[in-house]
Amino acid sequence: MYKMLHENLAVNENGHLTFAGHDTVLLAEQYGTPLYLLDEDMIRENCRVYLRSLREHFPEGSSALYASKALSFKDIYRIMAEEDMSVDVVSSGELYTAMRAGFPAGRVYFHGNNKTDADLNYALDCGVGYIIVDNSDELRTLNELARNKSLRQKVIARVTPGIDPHTFEAVNTGRIDCQFGVPIETGQAADFVHEILSCENVELCGYHCHIGSQIFDETPFMRAADIMLAFASEIRGKAGYVPALLNLGGGFGVRYVKAHPRIDITACIAALADHIKSSCARLDLPVPAILMEPGRSIVAAAGMTLYTAGSVKTIPGYRNYVTVDGGMSDNPRYALYRSEYTVLLAGRVNEPAEAEYTIAGRCCESGALIQENVPLPKPRRGDIIAVPVTGAYNYSMASNYNRLCRPPIVVLSGGKSRVAVRRESFEHLTANDV
Amino acid sequence: MYKMLHENLAVNENGHLTFAGHDTVLLAEQYGTPLYLLDEDMIRENCRVYLRSLREHFPEGSSALYASKALSFKDIYRIMAEEDMSVDVVSSGELYTAMRAGFPAGRVYFHGNNKTDADLNYALDCGVGYIIVDNSDELRTLNELARNKSLRQKVIARVTPGIDPHTFEAVNTGRIDCQFGVPIETGQAADFVHEILSCENVELCGYHCHIGSQIFDETPFMRAADIMLAFASEIRGKAGYVPALLNLGGGFGVRYVKAHPRIDITACIAALADHIKSSCARLDLPVPAILMEPGRSIVAAAGMTLYTAGSVKTIPGYRNYVTVDGGMSDNPRYALYRSEYTVLLAGRVNEPAEAEYTIAGRCCESGALIQENVPLPKPRRGDIIAVPVTGAYNYSMASNYNRLCRPPIVVLSGGKSRVAVRRESFEHLTANDV
Repeated sequence: MYKMLHENLAVNENGHLTFAGHDTVLLAEQYGTPLYLLDEDMIRENCRVYLRSLREHFPEGSSALYASKALSFKDIYRIMAEEDMSVDVVSSGELYTAMRAGFPAGRVYFHGNNKTDADLNYALDCGVGYIIVDNSDELRTLNELARNKSLRQKVIARVTPGIDPHTFEAVNTGRIDCQFGVPIETGQAADFVHEILSCENVELCGYHCHIGSQIFDETPFMRAADIMLAFASEIRGKAGYVPALLNLGGGFGVRYVKAHPRIDITACIAALADHIKSSCARLDLPVPAILMEPGRSIVAAAGMTLYTAGSVKTIPGYRNYVTVDGGMSDNPRYALYRSEYTVLLAGRVNEPAEAEYTIAGRCCESGALIQENVPLPKPRRGDIIAVPVTGAYNYSMASNYNRLCRPPIVVLSGGKSRVAVRRESFEHLTANDV
Repeated sequence: MYKMLHENLAVNENGHLTFAGHDTVLLAEQYGTPLYLLDEDMIRENCRVYLRSLREHFPEGSSALYASKALSFKDIYRIMAEEDMSVDVVSSGELYTAMRAGFPAGRVYFHGNNKTDADLNYALDCGVGYIIVDNSDELRTLNELARNKSLRQKVIARVTPGIDPHTFEAVNTGRIDCQFGVPIETGQAADFVHEILSCENVELCGYHCHIGSQIFDETPFMRAADIMLAFASEIRGKAGYVPALLNLGGGFGVRYVKAHPRIDITACIAALADHIKSSCARLDLPVPAILMEPGRSIVAAAGMTLYTAGSVKTIPGYRNYVTVDGGMSDNPRYALYRSEYTVLLAGRVNEPAEAEYTIAGRCCESGALIQENVPLPKPRRGDIIAVPVTGAYNYSMASNYNRLCRPPIVVLSGGKSRVAVRRESFEHLTANDV
């Protein structure tokens, strides 16, 4: 199984799982558990795949924006800066982290369905490249704040194309009935664009949509692009405005388990480019610069979580449990979405499975599971349990539920390891308590 | 609606929602939003109701343990110490917080399905009153660690009675198939007790069970007590051991919305006492001291969250959204369990509802809602939105998802307000980033 999931997984001569060339059992010993690992080389390669494809097939200005809500900490913005990526941030906290890492503000795109006045002021003061305006309330506030600062802020209009990419509802944001952006179908998006064009202190640079996540082929993006280009054509007819940029958002899928397909981003973007170019030709629109916002597909498979097994329970006639020293506090995705994960005994990868085990976290709540009914060799107290593909929406969604300290992030690169986020201490946990 | 839910809610002459006698609009202005409020007087009264009833009806040693996973920060342990409550902790982090607040270690009960060696060592070093042993692996480790320290640690055995109190699966932990404790039905609990009795460095003081949560009458507790007492009787027959304590866990329900029943804890405990005494008489068992572990029912209704409304969206033919400046980062319970909440416009409580609104958080995720389809007067950007009954499992489950800072906790008592947990800063958020 380990060989099949992603190329950064293998097994060494001791029968230990390796990740990015490192023995995971040794990493657990060195850094303690629970522990997040991150394969920097894979992150960089993923960035290059996106940038190369977008720049090859689309006009100048086309780029990939790392959707940093997937995983935000200082070092990741340094990596993105070095790879010439742009980044998408959704809060002042993400922007602050990027700024502290020295990320160039001009390559920051500020997102969000509810930017507060404080967020907008901070974004303007930092000089972010683009603000993705979500709605009229925000637009009016932004225009006024920019006027007060004698600025003209570049913006992109977020519209909802009404695409359902047949993914899980909770992470499907391109449908019309959602809290993000302004729908095309109801005519509200056209009005919104007219309103943007009438604002003196913002400069409209293009359109944005986001259709969902865990999308395993380019078809939904083609459908979204068609709707967006038809909308652009409609607006050109009505207002003479032609967008320089079209931001198609994120959403390419990641393989969490063997049953998920592999996806070839290079081929998908090439096919998408052919489609967009012919649509533009048909509509007699200049091909806009294309932006995409990969988050999960940049970092998910570059991450892994290591736990230490605690008690192992067999309840005859019911099932087997192995508990780990983390849980929904460091990975709430099973509790939230019943997300699938692969689970491996890091020290005995080659041993045949003996039975199915439910991987329970240590939080005091029945639903606090990592995964149910996973075939495993019989675990023992002290075994290292590895959960691959936890780079996205794990650390970023981590909590201190049950007053557990969040694990550190150890970055692996070129055969070396380094702590990029320190293990949370009890002092940090209680620092805000009076 | 505000008058009906809980007694600490009212409306003042300006049409503003008051909470524990304070104008919530003024509190939002003074402390900013998002903001957690906590009614200390209600918390103290809730503690007194439990302690009074348990002490009135059950033998000496009977007590209430505050299940601090519901809401843990330093000041809450000070309040519990003053109220003569004991506390239940589930991690070293909760224990550390209690110790830092000066809570007496002898009144601490240490829980958890996966206590690490570090947890057990720390608990022994602090001198906690009781450790609730969850399983054999843990028992052996604990016995050895206690021997190394030349201690004899008081313990309570966690067993699963196999009760389904007909509540939501994710918070139903008394059924047999769960990761907590040792089941009676399979005979494993009897073996476990024999093993505990054979350990020299632990002293068995009684039994523990926890059957679930949001239970609105005493019947499930009666059924659990019957199973536990029959088990005690069986063990007395086999091993001569008679428990001094019976810990029936937590689980009494809380009224989140008007449709939920009111519950009279005093009457429930009185009825439970009658039942337990007659069961003990029938089995010829001495009535044990009874412990209960309320968490939610101590703090939930004593809490409230205040938000500021951002954009308001009407999508014709679909629905209306109002977004707030917090979301699943400070209250993940709707995303996790579709939990019901009451939502009020704090500044215009008496205005009639104009339409139904879905309260969306500011996290970039469609499922990041606080509540759906709530009848409200038309909200405007800047309105204060109040969500009562957020004292339990809100701050304790809060995350920094989207790199949002966690709100402060302001405690209201005797007409005054004070910050008990400071608003998280960007510096705190990034303090562990290298």
